[in-house]
Amino acid sequence: MSDTPHLTFDLDELGISKGHLVIPKGADCEALSLPVFSLNKGKGPRLLITGGCHGNELEGPIVARRLVDWLPEAQTCGRVIIVPVLNPPAVQAWSRNTPVDGLNLNRSFPGRADGSVTERIADAVSRLLLPTTDTVFDLHSFGPMWDFPPASTTHPIADADLMAKTVRMAEAFKFPMTLVWEYHDTPGMFDILVQNQGKVFICAELGGGTIGSEALSIYEAGVRNALIALGLVEGEAEYPIFRQKKSSQTLETLSSDELKSPARGIFEPRCSMLDNVRQGDLIGTLHPMDSLSADSIDIRAPRTSTVCAIRSGAHVDANQTVALLARPLKL
Amino acid sequence: MSDTPHLTFDLDELGISKGHLVIPKGADCEALSLPVFSLNKGKGPRLLITGGCHGNELEGPIVARRLVDWLPEAQTCGRVIIVPVLNPPAVQAWSRNTPVDGLNLNRSFPGRADGSVTERIADAVSRLLLPTTDTVFDLHSFGPMWDFPPASTTHPIADADLMAKTVRMAEAFKFPMTLVWEYHDTPGMFDILVQNQGKVFICAELGGGTIGSEALSIYEAGVRNALIALGLVEGEAEYPIFRQKKSSQTLETLSSDELKSPARGIFEPRCSMLDNVRQGDLIGTLHPMDSLSADSIDIRAPRTSTVCAIRSGAHVDANQTVALLARPLKL
Repeated sequence: MSDTPHLTFDLDELGISKGHLVIPKGADCEALSLPVFSLNKGKGPRLLITGGCHGNELEGPIVARRLVDWLPEAQTCGRVIIVPVLNPPAVQAWSRNTPVDGLNLNRSFPGRADGSVTERIADAVSRLLLPTTDTVFDLHSFGPMWDFPPASTTHPIADADLMAKTVRMAEAFKFPMTLVWEYHDTPGMFDILVQNQGKVFICAELGGGTIGSEALSIYEAGVRNALIALGLVEGEAEYPIFRQKKSSQTLETLSSDELKSPARGIFEPRCSMLDNVRQGDLIGTLHPMDSLSADSIDIRAPRTSTVCAIRSGAHVDANQTVALLARPLKL
Repeated sequence: MSDTPHLTFDLDELGISKGHLVIPKGADCEALSLPVFSLNKGKGPRLLITGGCHGNELEGPIVARRLVDWLPEAQTCGRVIIVPVLNPPAVQAWSRNTPVDGLNLNRSFPGRADGSVTERIADAVSRLLLPTTDTVFDLHSFGPMWDFPPASTTHPIADADLMAKTVRMAEAFKFPMTLVWEYHDTPGMFDILVQNQGKVFICAELGGGTIGSEALSIYEAGVRNALIALGLVEGEAEYPIFRQKKSSQTLETLSSDELKSPARGIFEPRCSMLDNVRQGDLIGTLHPMDSLSADSIDIRAPRTSTVCAIRSGAHVDANQTVALLARPLKL
């Protein structure tokens, strides 16, 4: 076995290829074989779709797997590469981070060939898949502890042209929400690496909570809309029905829009995602656990905004994020 | 500090009491103080409401806490004791079992005074709270990995009179589903202990998935309905609106109704809870993770039934339960 990362097939071959991206073994674990699908119809957009970066966000792998089934009938030009599961050890452990080395794959780019397994995965993707692509859709979700609508997201990008192009691409998913998310924990993120190469990167955040069949249909429809917008697939893009509505809004959330828990206790959500709230409206209540004589603490909206994410009822520590607020994006 | 479990107040005192159930310290951890609420209006039904038996099922503690707020205005007779969190260490760790000793509190009854912390909690509840009560509502949920409707459940009971009385009480919640659940992993369960004393025990399974504000309102309405049926609270019981409907059905599920995963891989749910399926209908699909050339495996309904629980999209092992089917109960 080669000790450099490699693909088991030639990406330039025309037609359908199914094979693996091999991550060499290291001191911490054996070699990994990540299943890869490629459909090369020659000239046209070059797209990479990835899922399963975080092991407890399984919407991406399922939607990616559905694409593998119908893309051969639908794709008319260009090349689409699909890696349904970027991080198999994390998926098997239903863990956000890789259990072997404890690293977050989405903080490990561009990776290191001689690093631990998470860094070796990042290195293989950066060196073997990224150069062959102009656009990346990375399929995440908010995971089981949040209520969050199906959304396409990007962080703010310094290059104004790339920013505008990225927001247009994000809106093409026609998800209920397109979100520009100011987020400071960025070193090693996949999107930063791709955007620094001048390419479009969309992080699809495919909702939160449990993964059910209705939600999966919405996610699949959104990705299909984006493929149509790219010109890879023919058809009519359509807003998926979400909570009995067909609609979409483009919002932004700043780091100052994070609402934190005022104390340790049980967080009770008092509003729902996509609710419009006014200053003073109730977002949630924090119940101290030590005594029933202690007052519960109300957490209120500091300003008029849209709730874009709200935490599931859960035990939280003081200063833990319990909601994200947002406002209409002004570019 | 006394080394026997005790209450910090007298349950026989009339009116509202707020205090603690003290679990003595042991070799494994310090003493615990579980907040307890009691409202004693003299003659009438004697009810115990418990939540937070499993630490990743937070609906119960939140609904119990809401009851503490409005019961003083609403209760007209009898005595209600509320323990919102039976297992604080598990709730703080968001863990089904107690982290200290790894035990499942709902397999630890009647407990042991000289046992590990989970056994000491069970012992204190069994000895100090159970003798003072005729009816128990234990507020559970299916947790974050399942889709499950708000339901009141019981296991089959050998004593036919107690069974009929229990099903009537369960139906009084007017939840979307009342479920008689044949389940063989019963030693040490709270309900067995209570039912063996000839008392009514209802396990409310307050849904699955994330805990949102709409769901909490349904759960609270269901518990209020049951309090009205018991005669503790005056008012009109009403079916809560769940998925745009006001309805209820009484079902039973046998151990043979569990659908298992045929292999290791990613489970994709293809139907929703409360769907009515016919023999051969698709319940879910199992996607092998090792190769995109390997066929996905369809999991189909073996008979006409109602889907009462379906697992979230997730990585599963072979032979892991992915759905529970049910049929109308015939008593």
